[in-house]
Amino acid sequence: MATGYCLVVLTITLLSLASSPALATDGKPLQDYCVADKNGVPMNGFACKPPQSVTADDFTFSGLNKPGDTNNPAGFKATLVTVNQIPGLNTQGLSMVRLDFAPGGVNAPHIHPRASELLIVMEGSLEVGFVTTLPETKLITKVLQAGEAFVFPQALTHYQRNVGKEAAVGIAALDSQNPGTQPVVAAVLGSCPKIPVEVVAKALQADDSVATQLQSKFK
Amino acid sequence: MATGYCLVVLTITLLSLASSPALATDGKPLQDYCVADKNGVPMNGFACKPPQSVTADDFTFSGLNKPGDTNNPAGFKATLVTVNQIPGLNTQGLSMVRLDFAPGGVNAPHIHPRASELLIVMEGSLEVGFVTTLPETKLITKVLQAGEAFVFPQALTHYQRNVGKEAAVGIAALDSQNPGTQPVVAAVLGSCPKIPVEVVAKALQADDSVATQLQSKFK
Amino acid sequence: MATGYCLVVLTITLLSLASSPALATDGKPLQDYCVADKNGVPMNGFACKPPQSVTADDFTFSGLNKPGDTNNPAGFKATLVTVNQIPGLNTQGLSMVRLDFAPGGVNAPHIHPRASELLIVMEGSLEVGFVTTLPETKLITKVLQAGEAFVFPQALTHYQRNVGKEAAVGIAALDSQNPGTQPVVAAVLGSCPKIPVEVVAKALQADDSVATQLQSKFK
Amino acid sequence: MATGYCLVVLTITLLSLASSPALATDGKPLQDYCVADKNGVPMNGFACKPPQSVTADDFTFSGLNKPGDTNNPAGFKATLVTVNQIPGLNTQGLSMVRLDFAPGGVNAPHIHPRASELLIVMEGSLEVGFVTTLPETKLITKVLQAGEAFVFPQALTHYQRNVGKEAAVGIAALDSQNPGTQPVVAAVLGSCPKIPVEVVAKALQADDSVATQLQSKFK
Amino acid sequence: MATGYCLVVLTITLLSLASSPALATDGKPLQDYCVADKNGVPMNGFACKPPQSVTADDFTFSGLNKPGDTNNPAGFKATLVTVNQIPGLNTQGLSMVRLDFAPGGVNAPHIHPRASELLIVMEGSLEVGFVTTLPETKLITKVLQAGEAFVFPQALTHYQRNVGKEAAVGIAALDSQNPGTQPVVAAVLGSCPKIPVEVVAKALQADDSVATQLQSKFK
Amino acid sequence: MATGYCLVVLTITLLSLASSPALATDGKPLQDYCVADKNGVPMNGFACKPPQSVTADDFTFSGLNKPGDTNNPAGFKATLVTVNQIPGLNTQGLSMVRLDFAPGGVNAPHIHPRASELLIVMEGSLEVGFVTTLPETKLITKVLQAGEAFVFPQALTHYQRNVGKEAAVGIAALDSQNPGTQPVVAAVLGSCPKIPVEVVAKALQADDSVATQLQSKFK
Repeated sequence: MATGYCLVVLTITLLSLASSPALATDGKPLQDYCVADKNGVPMNGFACKPPQSVTADDFTFSGLNKPGDTNNPAGFKATLVTVNQIPGLNTQGLSMVRLDFAPGGVNAPHIHPRASELLIVMEGSLEVGFVTTLPETKLITKVLQAGEAFVFPQALTHYQRNVGKEAAVGIAALDSQNPGTQPVVAAVLGSCPKIPVEVVAKALQADDSVATQLQSKFK
Repeated sequence: MATGYCLVVLTITLLSLASSPALATDGKPLQDYCVADKNGVPMNGFACKPPQSVTADDFTFSGLNKPGDTNNPAGFKATLVTVNQIPGLNTQGLSMVRLDFAPGGVNAPHIHPRASELLIVMEGSLEVGFVTTLPETKLITKVLQAGEAFVFPQALTHYQRNVGKEAAVGIAALDSQNPGTQPVVAAVLGSCPKIPVEVVAKALQADDSVATQLQSKFK
Repeated sequence: MATGYCLVVLTITLLSLASSPALATDGKPLQDYCVADKNGVPMNGFACKPPQSVTADDFTFSGLNKPGDTNNPAGFKATLVTVNQIPGLNTQGLSMVRLDFAPGGVNAPHIHPRASELLIVMEGSLEVGFVTTLPETKLITKVLQAGEAFVFPQALTHYQRNVGKEAAVGIAALDSQNPGTQPVVAAVLGSCPKIPVEVVAKALQADDSVATQLQSKFK
Repeated sequence: MATGYCLVVLTITLLSLASSPALATDGKPLQDYCVADKNGVPMNGFACKPPQSVTADDFTFSGLNKPGDTNNPAGFKATLVTVNQIPGLNTQGLSMVRLDFAPGGVNAPHIHPRASELLIVMEGSLEVGFVTTLPETKLITKVLQAGEAFVFPQALTHYQRNVGKEAAVGIAALDSQNPGTQPVVAAVLGSCPKIPVEVVAKALQADDSVATQLQSKFK
Repeated sequence: MATGYCLVVLTITLLSLASSPALATDGKPLQDYCVADKNGVPMNGFACKPPQSVTADDFTFSGLNKPGDTNNPAGFKATLVTVNQIPGLNTQGLSMVRLDFAPGGVNAPHIHPRASELLIVMEGSLEVGFVTTLPETKLITKVLQAGEAFVFPQALTHYQRNVGKEAAVGIAALDSQNPGTQPVVAAVLGSCPKIPVEVVAKALQADDSVATQLQSKFK
Repeated sequence: MATGYCLVVLTITLLSLASSPALATDGKPLQDYCVADKNGVPMNGFACKPPQSVTADDFTFSGLNKPGDTNNPAGFKATLVTVNQIPGLNTQGLSMVRLDFAPGGVNAPHIHPRASELLIVMEGSLEVGFVTTLPETKLITKVLQAGEAFVFPQALTHYQRNVGKEAAVGIAALDSQNPGTQPVVAAVLGSCPKIPVEVVAKALQADDSVATQLQSKFK
């Protein structure tokens, strides 16, 4: 849906996208499986592929053994396993993601509008945190070593950062087949079209000039 | 739960809180009503007040006829009607809020982790908008006149601004008894304790010095 | 679906319809939005309009600033804001309604089979009440002034009446995109076709002649 | 909760109660079972009995083989099997009921605020029907013989009547552990305290005198 | 979907199927009814039949008064009443089943992946039981006489056996429109194609030869 | 709850337990978090720890970097991360598990009564499969290499086996905070007390002597 002048934004956001797919508490299945028919009638979730044409491949996805390419400004990459990658996840209510971090790499603060998240650090060391709602706005944070797990409550702003000297890898579960990801700073500064500078300035408690300058980074 | 040096943040966030309470699609009631017992055992939602002590007042809240005080930096004030104001809302799955805006007043970009929102403009004129998730990050926006309604999808970043010359008033519904509100910029820049500057800088695609300066506004 | 001899009933019920639309705790969205395609394949809720053709107008509705016409026997009119008015409400789980009452106007006892309701009195003074289930059948009632809110538990019989000298206005939220409204007396006496008189008489604890006479009012 | 002068109503309503308990689509269990502890902390549903004190009897109920006593004005009796009769039903989301009808017996029009219902006629012949919401208010009705089943959609007004020469028996399932039952005419005319006569009269489209007379039957 | 050499399995499983259909806690209806259109677009549940072509027959099913034919190895037969038999059950969240047992007849251990079950013994005497999850694996069992009811928690392995000298009959409710049934021993030994013998042997804690012999019974 | 003579069974089942914890689509949170208070009032899920005593450790679990001990008859071990290990998972609707397999190790056919499962093979090669419900009873199976993922639909019987020459490791997500695990063969042959041999024999389509011998393995 994005117009041409949003291409750069798209490039940026695709990296962010990789950064942390999530899942939401979805509805219940009404049959054993309803493999998503991507070409079917658009509806909440997906129409079902005819059972007779369903195979084991519809429940499978490959490629999670390859490290994600973290050669980007964020030093971070995520590889998603949602209903968009495995049609058999349709109606099953969950998804996963592989997170790769270069040293110092960051999965910027973001939310998953339709899911809670449970992360396991497979390699390296990650600092993680989430922020509570008003009036508290409290940051609950911890540094995790390989083999440690952490839960991020539903739709709250959260982040991860590689605080080790080596690459770090995480595997996360989310309770939706399509959690959705919204890096909140990019949403406020880099949407297409842009949010009016006066609104951004008030949110930043700063002058319009500061807001304009910050927005300009997100062409 | 906030420590002393968070008092200022609290003052700020309380204003923001007013700015847009929301509700989530909660579970189903298992009896006619379960009036919240605020002093009861803490649980998901609330324990029920003994039926014999329930009165009509448990389903009532007053004071929505008074304009909210918008004499603050945001030029905005919200008056909540959630389970915290009406104990009878416990298990009923919805809440409402009155939004008051001074001319130019802004309800900064925020999310409701547990609700969708439907807003009706009662007086004045409001510019509203919400941002979609990755990879699109599209802003869907519109200027509403008195008598117009607009829906904000579940947990997506959204805002409202008074673009008229007079005060503006809105009434919104949310599909949770306790939607929660998180102004996303304040969550990233003003949490207690602060999110590490390196993380904020990467999110802003800016230098640490810029991040530090911005965070300093949210003491 | 109503046959000709139901036209009068329809006229009556449409007024009643205005009287109190409600919403139900619906399922969860599986994507940012699924704007209802009214011409799409019929399903639980609605099929989704293709994203590329979605605009801000799909999330908007106008006309709530005009008082509803209360020049009718009930002295009451409601203006609905459900998925039928705002296609963007599809999958979002809530709706709203504006209620207008002439002095003495009544929103007759009714239920919303798929929703709880939260009402705010904007102008005037309303007596409201709901009845609990068996074996209690207790009426919980209160007179509300402008600025007061009241909650009606899911699917219980409830009513509102303007007990002031001026017109009264209310705004209500419901936790379903399509709550449905059923004025219970009209459902028992005025369905099309009619419920057998023997059944109505037993419900009234009266003679068949009384039941027949009452039914005759609902041609 | 009912005061003394409601005793008669209670007697009547208890009969009606028997007439058709229903269940609602409840939440999901979070463990194998959570047997209701009737003396526990009041909450949505019930607290759980300690697992070590749970026995097979907690999942059992007796007495459905005895015909219900239909020697009453309605010529009808229901025997409930809800979480109030089987504590093991807590969190399991369903319940059942046995319905006994004398010849001509009627289960007056009622709703189940928290459930859909599926009825099987075991003996005799029953006329059944349900009414749709506004603007249609259509009666969908059928005469069922022994061995036939019929579904009543969630929370819609419905009734059953024995149109045979012999006693009739039905077994119904409801999708809630505590559906609740509200005979709608008794709710409007016989609540405690009474709904104001002016409201009842408008609902009946009749004079206050008619409303007063009808209400007087429900002391 | 089964290939020819699965016909025998099919014959066997159909008997088992009869043995205990169940329902799951499904989503909520978004309109009064959505009668299943079996020829419609495949989706989670079913598309809706056009309202104008809906009749009372869409909510009805016949034939439950005839005893099921128990002249088979299991001495058991079930007659289902799910959305597959009553299209009007679509979106309503429940179903029922009639269970017939010859003396000694057994409804083998099975699960309903999408439902809890509530059983009423109409005639005869049934021994029933369900097994809890790890680490307990406890059998909770009881002998029920005519008129007794018992609840089987969601998706746990359970069975019923006629321990009387006469035929036994049960009626059960399940909280899903399509609960699904999986006789667990037949699933492990008689799937099509077969589960590798090494896997079956480990599950049985027996030699491969024993596993092979047992699997051979389920051609 | 198990009596002494079930100790051996417990030892066996605990290994199996490790074999595949799962999660169910749970209800929605009604606040940011409700950290489980294991010593609190027993309820569906858990009571909440007082917010002021909540720390980051309540959302954390350690030890997933150590390979599970597969030196047991099954050649398999699972390490769970459910609400029992991370109290912060309460109300969040998901959990995870680490699965370790020795060469030839098997996670015997089992079900998760309250969850769907998504598995990622981290090391080695696993054959996986699940069986559909009646009347099909079809096995959908595939051999997965490191980096491949597979989904097991809600509550269906499924298994995994290490078909490689080296140890294999998997990480799985489940959509419940407490999915529960039931190895179906152990449930039928090794419950405490035992299921009557006549029932087991009919399920096996074998003689009582065969059933008795098989049950004897599960002391």
